[in-house]
Amino acid sequence: MLGRFYEGQDCSAARALEIVGERWSLLIIRDALFGGLTRFSDFERSLGIAPNILARRLEAFVAAGIMETRSSGFEHAEYVVTRKGLDFKPVVMALTAWGDRWAAPEGPPAILQHDGCGGRVSLRIHCARCGMNPAPEDVVARPSTRRRTPLPENRGASRWRKT
Amino acid sequence: MLGRFYEGQDCSAARALEIVGERWSLLIIRDALFGGLTRFSDFERSLGIAPNILARRLEAFVAAGIMETRSSGFEHAEYVVTRKGLDFKPVVMALTAWGDRWAAPEGPPAILQHDGCGGRVSLRIHCARCGMNPAPEDVVARPSTRRRTPLPENRGASRWRKT
Repeated sequence: MLGRFYEGQDCSAARALEIVGERWSLLIIRDALFGGLTRFSDFERSLGIAPNILARRLEAFVAAGIMETRSSGFEHAEYVVTRKGLDFKPVVMALTAWGDRWAAPEGPPAILQHDGCGGRVSLRIHCARCGMNPAPEDVVARPSTRRRTPLPENRGASRWRKT
Repeated sequence: MLGRFYEGQDCSAARALEIVGERWSLLIIRDALFGGLTRFSDFERSLGIAPNILARRLEAFVAAGIMETRSSGFEHAEYVVTRKGLDFKPVVMALTAWGDRWAAPEGPPAILQHDGCGGRVSLRIHCARCGMNPAPEDVVARPSTRRRTPLPENRGASRWRKT
């Protein structure tokens, strides 16, 4: 049997889900990332979510460092995504690509664009060695030797750098 | 307020979550995609999941067309991922990348490799117009005009083609 290193859920996908693996959480972060929402009332209206559930989810995001609160004068607090939250955007993009292809019988409801030039953006699998774009079936997981020394937090610049 | 087109959840990310937006489901599909698991008992052992929950999730995957059952002689049925299931691999990859960066204090437990050459693979955001790799913050969502005529099912070849 392959994949024994998944036992005990020592797996980054599992850990990501631990933090944002609940449907409302993902819809809230989606609205924050792509809808630009920051205000409690806007999330509430956009999602039709019960206020007590929304409050719990936003508090959990702040506790997890995915959002931070900002007070804007006499207005209510705003919930603004942090770098950690912004880095979650590719997850929503991957979910969107899958849904566009397999769960959008009337065609994609939204398109994702490069803000700079207006071009369509998509995710590609990139191989650092051969420079190809492998198909999903050609990607395999191997246990890491963990030789890399992890930095305490926030490992330097985002890996989603512009090139 | 931006993002009004999310109202009513006419959104591909929301629809993807509708199908696989529950933690056990994502862990099962992860084990199928990256661990190569197909047998009920292997999923059960890998995840420590209650058999009744596992059975329900696998049945839901078959019903959704993400897996199909194959009988292998006197063995129990095997659950094999379909093209629709394989296309979910980038979602798990995106979750893994986020977890590696933000929720793996001891370093990534696994690395993803190109099966062909053994190189490290990652997801990149690609702009079809300028050819750049935009940062997540430079990706915006716009409502689609839905001019594209959708095919009834399984729109041709995978968009995750090798290049």
